[in-house]
Amino acid sequence: MFQEMLENVRKRHPLIHNITNYVTVNDCANILLACGGSPIMSDDTGEVEEITSACGGLTINTGTLNQRTIPAMLAAGKKANELGHPVVLDPVGAGASALRTNTAFDLLSKVGFAVIRGNISEVKTLARYGGATQGVDAGAADCVTKENLEQSVAFIKAFAAQTGSVVAVTGAIDIAADSKSAYVIFNGHPMMSSITGTGCMLSAMTAAYVTANPEKVLEAAAAAVCAMGVCGEIAYERLGPMDGSASYRNYILDAVYRLDGKTLERRAKYNIL
Amino acid sequence: MFQEMLENVRKRHPLIHNITNYVTVNDCANILLACGGSPIMSDDTGEVEEITSACGGLTINTGTLNQRTIPAMLAAGKKANELGHPVVLDPVGAGASALRTNTAFDLLSKVGFAVIRGNISEVKTLARYGGATQGVDAGAADCVTKENLEQSVAFIKAFAAQTGSVVAVTGAIDIAADSKSAYVIFNGHPMMSSITGTGCMLSAMTAAYVTANPEKVLEAAAAAVCAMGVCGEIAYERLGPMDGSASYRNYILDAVYRLDGKTLERRAKYNIL
Amino acid sequence: MFQEMLENVRKRHPLIHNITNYVTVNDCANILLACGGSPIMSDDTGEVEEITSACGGLTINTGTLNQRTIPAMLAAGKKANELGHPVVLDPVGAGASALRTNTAFDLLSKVGFAVIRGNISEVKTLARYGGATQGVDAGAADCVTKENLEQSVAFIKAFAAQTGSVVAVTGAIDIAADSKSAYVIFNGHPMMSSITGTGCMLSAMTAAYVTANPEKVLEAAAAAVCAMGVCGEIAYERLGPMDGSASYRNYILDAVYRLDGKTLERRAKYNIL
Repeated sequence: MFQEMLENVRKRHPLIHNITNYVTVNDCANILLACGGSPIMSDDTGEVEEITSACGGLTINTGTLNQRTIPAMLAAGKKANELGHPVVLDPVGAGASALRTNTAFDLLSKVGFAVIRGNISEVKTLARYGGATQGVDAGAADCVTKENLEQSVAFIKAFAAQTGSVVAVTGAIDIAADSKSAYVIFNGHPMMSSITGTGCMLSAMTAAYVTANPEKVLEAAAAAVCAMGVCGEIAYERLGPMDGSASYRNYILDAVYRLDGKTLERRAKYNIL
Repeated sequence: MFQEMLENVRKRHPLIHNITNYVTVNDCANILLACGGSPIMSDDTGEVEEITSACGGLTINTGTLNQRTIPAMLAAGKKANELGHPVVLDPVGAGASALRTNTAFDLLSKVGFAVIRGNISEVKTLARYGGATQGVDAGAADCVTKENLEQSVAFIKAFAAQTGSVVAVTGAIDIAADSKSAYVIFNGHPMMSSITGTGCMLSAMTAAYVTANPEKVLEAAAAAVCAMGVCGEIAYERLGPMDGSASYRNYILDAVYRLDGKTLERRAKYNIL
Repeated sequence: MFQEMLENVRKRHPLIHNITNYVTVNDCANILLACGGSPIMSDDTGEVEEITSACGGLTINTGTLNQRTIPAMLAAGKKANELGHPVVLDPVGAGASALRTNTAFDLLSKVGFAVIRGNISEVKTLARYGGATQGVDAGAADCVTKENLEQSVAFIKAFAAQTGSVVAVTGAIDIAADSKSAYVIFNGHPMMSSITGTGCMLSAMTAAYVTANPEKVLEAAAAAVCAMGVCGEIAYERLGPMDGSASYRNYILDAVYRLDGKTLERRAKYNIL
């Protein structure tokens, strides 16, 4: 089934508007092209509504947000909602500053998100907004493990129910869930955390996947998460004796470019809970 | 003749001021170094006139423009004109939003450009500014093909006459023209569209070429376009079985770094119309 | 001794807040991860104090500074000083515009820097702020050479005494000095100047080194400078016949990722003056 999700991206070439941070913006543009989509980056209030109207989907990423770009995030998000375009939120750094946390809360209250994709710590921060307590304090180590998996899945499903979004939490184990079902995904490699931007790239790619598969948001988000993990594995297997993190980054993007649906299907490792 | 253009860049090391988007800015800086020039990036009105005064040429790229950087584009452009420095315009996204289109029009009315470099859709948008109709609707598919080549060349020459700029339109077939002559260039590879920034990089490199060859702006712009295409071919030939778009990007920059005048001359494929 | 410095970075994983330019920001984030630290990029006055409080060290880089980010640099710098976090200044372009020079002067007057890292021209510009004349005009060629080494070391020590900072000047020969001792470092390769960002990356990495080695700021800064040079050499040795500047950049980051303390110690070439 992930095969179909990937193939729809390659067939439909979704155009994705990205309001994102300047650290990983080039990687986000390149991964969108590599997976079969197209990127437009634009963050000025004077044009974001028009730009997002011409696109199929939108990613809002709060890394390096500033006073100028925050209103653009809200304006673009509302416009995309009006038009029925899927919007992906990557709440980078929610919890790290009041500005980021409050911006994420404000976005959650004013924009409907098809998918929220973050790490467990960011997602816990967001969950507190809605007054959630169940599971917020799960996982003392602040990561999803086999030991706290059941509890983590319950927490993520509850947050998905509360927001009406698919919630994708990535880490050593990835979980993509709506209120009823959760894909628990075991692909990926620890070396992915040795480069910046794997999360941002995944969020951008998720927007392409859900835009190309509008009827199957959960499956599409899970497929994107799984594809990123598979590419992290393929890239790792390719490393030579002199290669380090820069080559690894390139190899991940190369793998995304080359990935076909059959390989994704064959290498995918997940359970549905 | 392209050989001489390239060698002048390597000999004269033109210093290029760039006001450009944050998506591909790193690639623009690196291609300027790779081709033999030097980059300075600066976009604050408090310094752009001073910065551009210390440079030999200027690139204005309207990708990810914003309310803060638009006045800086105008100020730098005017200053460069005063000093007789060549200015290259890359009207990224002209036609995609009123802000970008109006900014491009405003720049065209207030700044003289040595070269305007864009895709056919962006250049058609600009041509409408001057009230041009001839050829604006050429090419239903919105790209230059063998079938519409004559019409496209006529359109581009007319726009060059109207603006007094050399106009370089890149796509499957590239055209660089002034009002009288057009270089129709057949180098390049379709895979170049699978990475972000080949257009932006070419605009930055074009500024280096015209700055190092101030007496021969058309030939210099054509040489830059041709060099980019040749490097796209060399990079493609180098791809291994695991390589994808990230390696391809690196190989293009590597090829620009290694390109010599003889290779450029030998591999160049163009007609003059 | 450099071995210990490097190993402390890998052991302590310093979290570094970076206010930096958008040209090389991705490389700065990736080199911090590659050397064993972690990056956070943030430049809005609404959050920089909070972000820097959560970090161990701070880098302020004045490339592509603007009216919005300059107050953030000052606010973050003061906060880091209050908390006793080491702050590294990279005065990119000091001397190239009044805005950059005045910003650097303002930062110097209001923030205490553990390390100032720049090229000789930038550091001379800063030295003029304090009214220094000794050695400011050393080196007509504006670079440190064997011929002007003694004079250059004296100048850098004097500037270190004046500012209370360790001063690291990089070029063909690198010097890292406090008021009393100077490490004169002969590692590195000329090809490092063919890519953008080796200076910015070094400044970010220096912040990681001094944050992980708070008792030995001079030695830590010298170790970072030396590590960057060694990685430039390793990367150069790895270049294949088709490789150019893009591969070289990747190989440098790869080498930083793979570098261990023993290799650093073995390859380090320096004198203490």
